[in-house]
Amino acid sequence: MGFNRARIAIDAMGGDFAPGEIVAGAIRAKAELDVDVVLVGDIDQIKASTASPEQLVGIELVPAEGSIEMHEEPLSALRKKPQASINVAMDLVKRNEADAVVSAGHSGAAMAAALLRLGRLKGIDRPAIGAVFPTVVANKSVLILDVGANVDCRPKYLEQFAIMGTIYSRYVLGVDNPRVGLINIGEEPSKGNDAALKAHQLLEENPNIPFAGNAEGRDILSGQFDVVVCDGFVGNVLLKFAEAVGESVLQILREELPQGVRGKIGASILKPNLRRIKQRVDHAEHGGGLLLGVAGVTVISHGSSQAPSVFNAIRLAKEAVDNRVQDRIQAQYQRVAIPAADGE
Amino acid sequence: MGFNRARIAIDAMGGDFAPGEIVAGAIRAKAELDVDVVLVGDIDQIKASTASPEQLVGIELVPAEGSIEMHEEPLSALRKKPQASINVAMDLVKRNEADAVVSAGHSGAAMAAALLRLGRLKGIDRPAIGAVFPTVVANKSVLILDVGANVDCRPKYLEQFAIMGTIYSRYVLGVDNPRVGLINIGEEPSKGNDAALKAHQLLEENPNIPFAGNAEGRDILSGQFDVVVCDGFVGNVLLKFAEAVGESVLQILREELPQGVRGKIGASILKPNLRRIKQRVDHAEHGGGLLLGVAGVTVISHGSSQAPSVFNAIRLAKEAVDNRVQDRIQAQYQRVAIPAADGE
Repeated sequence: MGFNRARIAIDAMGGDFAPGEIVAGAIRAKAELDVDVVLVGDIDQIKASTASPEQLVGIELVPAEGSIEMHEEPLSALRKKPQASINVAMDLVKRNEADAVVSAGHSGAAMAAALLRLGRLKGIDRPAIGAVFPTVVANKSVLILDVGANVDCRPKYLEQFAIMGTIYSRYVLGVDNPRVGLINIGEEPSKGNDAALKAHQLLEENPNIPFAGNAEGRDILSGQFDVVVCDGFVGNVLLKFAEAVGESVLQILREELPQGVRGKIGASILKPNLRRIKQRVDHAEHGGGLLLGVAGVTVISHGSSQAPSVFNAIRLAKEAVDNRVQDRIQAQYQRVAIPAADGE
Repeated sequence: MGFNRARIAIDAMGGDFAPGEIVAGAIRAKAELDVDVVLVGDIDQIKASTASPEQLVGIELVPAEGSIEMHEEPLSALRKKPQASINVAMDLVKRNEADAVVSAGHSGAAMAAALLRLGRLKGIDRPAIGAVFPTVVANKSVLILDVGANVDCRPKYLEQFAIMGTIYSRYVLGVDNPRVGLINIGEEPSKGNDAALKAHQLLEENPNIPFAGNAEGRDILSGQFDVVVCDGFVGNVLLKFAEAVGESVLQILREELPQGVRGKIGASILKPNLRRIKQRVDHAEHGGGLLLGVAGVTVISHGSSQAPSVFNAIRLAKEAVDNRVQDRIQAQYQRVAIPAADGE
């Protein structure tokens, strides 16, 4: 492929700490990553949000009017506010003026805007949000999808998630032979609810899915799977649960480690080690979720994102663009539709 | 209530470490708790499993023939082996010769045996397994149910779980005003899949349920809920995920804390604090799951249970018996069925 620097449109107005933290993350990404950054939003507010406006040099600013508020119903709000920052950002991708959108705003609105403005890839019934988690094996992560786009899933959606996850794992996470699991309540193919039983069969029969069997709750972060698929209800509960457990453990460490005189001495000696533990446990280090299956890269970040998360989300978008994830998904489906040619 | 010492029948042949670890846990329970213990299984194997048989004095041994293996289909295996240890143990409760059963064997078989031999309480369509988790608030726990008995749940089952959980929380965990949550993907009543939407309405309208709203993944261990209900698919994935995360974190601590010279010194100083952290994080400290909604107390332990877990499971069974959990659930349903009289 000819190399073009990825150009990321950032919804500067979305998120609990917008625009300040969003702009700060974008400035850092522009400085440290090989990307072009476009900030979409209220230009005055964007400029006012940074103490040193010269840092904005080299960053393109695209005006938008307002944003979708957390309490708003996504579809009607998107329609009422065609110039909202998320709509304008999506339109940049649609017109090929940007390669990807990053938003920490209303996640339902970001998803709906992507669907409405960019559309689904051919062959994909339901786009899914994939989130990358650390596993217990150092430097090995697992992609979980869907973590919230679809609360009720037919078995064939799970099959599509598995195909998209395989491609993502292979080309973005660099796993040569990804192992795909189906989240379920037992290892045996006979275990699970109706949807899981049928999905198991579809995954097993699809030659494009390197299916490695059911993944029980305990297997998800064990490192034995590279991709695990589930419906968006289960995935969303797991995602938020895992984030909270990571934070809780850090909190318990902070409470218990420095207890007593020995504790105070020991904890102060261990500061560098504790930082490393935080990095391995803390989900916030891992950016945002990637919306897979729409015709354009979209990264959906946590509403509470601050500059480091925004930076990580931009990096995630860049990696998806550089590795042409959506093109590869589309190609896979074209290969599936026509008799299989030699794979890439 | 007149005081009778709880009498616990233990499936000595069920579990990965049966009978040795099961017997060891039972011996400790007999010594440390105010309970009578009955070991059900192969008498010779039970006796041979302990180096000092005099420790079995005061423990009743009831013979059984064989047990249900992990690979067997529960219903047919229970029928083929009427004298299997789990069947014999349930029969003791049915004949009022014991108050409770504890088993670390095939959990589906334990559940099916309880249903077949003891039956459901009136008003309960589906018994549920409740598991108690530590929260981030020290000394505060949360009851999650169902963690695996029912993979597909109608909304009214979730309503029944909420009633059973409320009673358990109030009378066994000692929470005066339990707060009940519904596991869901958002706080708003309008969020969730079909089952969650309908369950939300049922929980809200039932005057016997102190419903406090939806619990997102991040809220489950936050301490803001005393009981959370979900279907057995979600609950089982969460249970096993949480167990694994606890273990993973301990493993990361063991790997990272002693890194380097500072680490070795710091970690050795911190040993007592690390033990306390393990107790707060490690789910194994919390025993087993209680099967709620059958006419008799049944505790289902992890297949990998060793003596400390077996001991904790017996204590859990004793607490459920002493606090008459099943009677109270039954009474609640009789009050619901007939016009509400003055509460007990």
